[in-house]
Amino acid sequence: MPLDEPAVTFRPALRTDLARVVELIADDDVARERTGTFGAAHVAGFEAIEASPNDELVLAVLDDEVVGVMQLTFVPGVSRNGATRLLVEAVRVDARRRGRGIGRALMEHAHARGRERGAALAQLTSDKQRPDAHRFYRSLGYAQSHEGFKLTL
Amino acid sequence: MPLDEPAVTFRPALRTDLARVVELIADDDVARERTGTFGAAHVAGFEAIEASPNDELVLAVLDDEVVGVMQLTFVPGVSRNGATRLLVEAVRVDARRRGRGIGRALMEHAHARGRERGAALAQLTSDKQRPDAHRFYRSLGYAQSHEGFKLTL
Repeated sequence: MPLDEPAVTFRPALRTDLARVVELIADDDVARERTGTFGAAHVAGFEAIEASPNDELVLAVLDDEVVGVMQLTFVPGVSRNGATRLLVEAVRVDARRRGRGIGRALMEHAHARGRERGAALAQLTSDKQRPDAHRFYRSLGYAQSHEGFKLTL
Repeated sequence: MPLDEPAVTFRPALRTDLARVVELIADDDVARERTGTFGAAHVAGFEAIEASPNDELVLAVLDDEVVGVMQLTFVPGVSRNGATRLLVEAVRVDARRRGRGIGRALMEHAHARGRERGAALAQLTSDKQRPDAHRFYRSLGYAQSHEGFKLTL
């Protein structure tokens, strides 16, 4: 199997995948502390995603194992000539599986799903502490055109 | 009336406000071209916002005139311990009314609305061509912690 064509498949996350999803999201130097240990707060977040018509939690599966995750949010809008935006959050690939094109396949799946639902624009932010991720997103054609701001409420 | 306490009120945008909303969004060097002339695409975008349980288009009103606009999107999630995020997009204040605290009042209203709906985090991106906006968001307490990426689909 060539390195750039992993036999990755994609499917929506189920409630029974949630412990694994939290594990993937937490397995990261930047996110570990703020993710917390798998518990009721994650279940509530998952149920809110399931209840939303505009949100999808998508898994990448390789050899029957969940190896990646991302959340897609479709944001309708008036600006940019009434464009729907695809917001991509919480992109993670299993650390043991990196460098095999899984992240790229995941993002290409996000863009295909975005086009299916009529999105004209994909957008995401990446912590300034992640220069490798920035290079990755630029390699996918993203413009690094914006500053990203966060405020705890 | 002190400069920092404008008598601004806030209300959801109605279909009849839409031409004014598009005018406000387009009245900006960065956004003018990509906004387009008010038409069917903006109406479709507005109707999609109205149909979404997670999106709100909010107007700032001063002396019976619409002087500002912003879109709020509530994004449920598993990451950050199951936090809901408040995404703020398309923030605009009438160019003739700037420097009177309307933008600050608009953002404080966004944050109050975010807390009401249980959001733990507010986030937004701002074009790298807008240093004044970056200073403004930092002055509100935002951390300029992320790089923002966009891709046309």
